Amino acid sequence: MGVNKFIGNDGLETEINLMEKKGILIGMAGASGSGKTLVAQTLYNTLGSKRVVIIQEDSYYKDLAHLPLQERTRINFDHPDAFDHDLLVTHLKKLVNGEVIEHPVYDYSIHSRKPETRQVGPHRIIILEGILVLAIPEIRELMDIKIYIDTDPDICLIRRLRRDIHERGREVDSVLRQYEETVRPMYLQFVEPSKRYAHIIIPHGGKNVIAIDIVKSKIEKLLREIEAS
Amino acid sequence: MGVNKFIGNDGLETEINLMEKKGILIGMAGASGSGKTLVAQTLYNTLGSKRVVIIQEDSYYKDLAHLPLQERTRINFDHPDAFDHDLLVTHLKKLVNGEVIEHPVYDYSIHSRKPETRQVGPHRIIILEGILVLAIPEIRELMDIKIYIDTDPDICLIRRLRRDIHERGREVDSVLRQYEETVRPMYLQFVEPSKRYAHIIIPHGGKNVIAIDIVKSKIEKLLREIEAS
Repeated sequence: MGVNKFIGNDGLETEINLMEKKGILIGMAGASGSGKTLVAQTLYNTLGSKRVVIIQEDSYYKDLAHLPLQERTRINFDHPDAFDHDLLVTHLKKLVNGEVIEHPVYDYSIHSRKPETRQVGPHRIIILEGILVLAIPEIRELMDIKIYIDTDPDICLIRRLRRDIHERGREVDSVLRQYEETVRPMYLQFVEPSKRYAHIIIPHGGKNVIAIDIVKSKIEKLLREIEAS
Repeated sequence: MGVNKFIGNDGLETEINLMEKKGILIGMAGASGSGKTLVAQTLYNTLGSKRVVIIQEDSYYKDLAHLPLQERTRINFDHPDAFDHDLLVTHLKKLVNGEVIEHPVYDYSIHSRKPETRQVGPHRIIILEGILVLAIPEIRELMDIKIYIDTDPDICLIRRLRRDIHERGREVDSVLRQYEETVRPMYLQFVEPSKRYAHIIIPHGGKNVIAIDIVKSKIEKLLREIEAS
């Protein structure tokens, strides 16, 4: 990237070089149900939609339209291969350069991309949230601030159960089977180890008002500095 | 405390109520060698000594003057009982009320308090750092922001070895024996479990420039708000 210099073996960047940046990328990873979306949404709501945009890794699921519908549901949606990370990287590079992207619109019910896209950008602050955003080196390298939302796995499971049963009308046994077969193994293999790359770790997720406010203070300061430069 | 309201079962406070506060208490726990002191010192250096003071839990070791010198060295200095936490709580309550304290001056070489004290206060921001500051409920309850510095145990051990051997002239076997007998068991029993109470977790300690800068932004904002009120 040329923007961040690495120090020591920790791979920790020095301060953010605002002079070379049109958009600041804040990455937010954590387990499914950890509260990533609520943290991102809270920041967005208090900072204002003009300057901030949220990009969800979920919108970059690969288009499975070429597969029979029955086969699509058998995909491991928690594995890196399920995502079109190449397109996501291309889009993130454009957004940090202050350009506009054609954001994909995903139809989760049939696991395929809709024909239409949504124009996004330019924005000063780009909040990227998703289970694997800290696990993919090409995405991680684009980030100015790396955040990991660290919520206890049982609490994440409770949230997932409530959401999938009440909001998506799924059966409890099906949710638990998916959890055991893909969600949990992929969390252990990819998500949890990516915590190591975070600059800060936020425990308890979206309820952690103080932590969200701390991150907000930093973003506000970045916005002031960008707008003064 | 009356200042912070608790929400849900997480024990997470709502926003800091500046109206009722003369001093903001920021607690910083983590293993010996995690980089607590460097993080606190970096914040202090960039924020200025007038408004900020660092209080070290180490200064509140119990006075062992009543014990023969030989016995003093056999104390478990990583156990809560080694600290005069009552005096620390009394002093912290005064500092957050904008009062002056008579800060103890400890002579580590003979494990006893010097007769003189040092006047400290009033300060707007009080940074408290120590291995057990998040483990003691009475201290934790006084804090407005709770931070845990989470550095890998082997990295902490490397720092401790270098410090004790090069700066304090100790033998490697003695340092390792103390580490196995008291430092590690007390870390596992008291320090690591207290991470659960943190609002934010800073990995990699003092080298984590971005995390320190994020906390600094929040403190600067608090100072602006206090000074405007």
